[in-house]
Amino acid sequence: MYKAKIFVNYKPSVLDPQAQAIHKALVRLGDDNVATVMMGKYFELTLTATDVDAATAQVDRICDRLLANVSMETYHFTVTPVGEATV
Amino acid sequence: MYKAKIFVNYKPSVLDPQAQAIHKALVRLGDDNVATVMMGKYFELTLTATDVDAATAQVDRICDRLLANVSMETYHFTVTPVGEATV
Repeated sequence: MYKAKIFVNYKPSVLDPQAQAIHKALVRLGDDNVATVMMGKYFELTLTATDVDAATAQVDRICDRLLANVSMETYHFTVTPVGEATV
Repeated sequence: MYKAKIFVNYKPSVLDPQAQAIHKALVRLGDDNVATVMMGKYFELTLTATDVDAATAQVDRICDRLLANVSMETYHFTVTPVGEATV
């Protein structure tokens, strides 16, 4: 069994109104020392696979087809055997 | 300058229809070896602060007040000086 930790974010060139709204709210709340706000989606999948390469290839395909809108978003992920600690 | 990496997820007891919909879509696409799907929000903030403890306390307050709905969601985060590599 493998665990995939997937991060999906807007490309830098894409305007993120939600992150901007959060930044404005922070300033209104007095947290004006916050310089930048970036917001994204985070997924954790567990899947069976023959080996880590097979799991990695499958997760990449899943991100490309379903989890990320590749015209506007980028993604990166880690795949580890379940039981091995990462962050 | 400090960078906070924040993860906000539903509490285990809370039903996540979006994650369920993704799981069903994966099965339809033939990825039926995916056992579990968890989805959450991911934020990166950069902020100035006197020291890492002050930055940590502020980020905790920001999560509690703005980024997480603490009745349904949990959050965890890391705070590191900008320039020090983490995952």
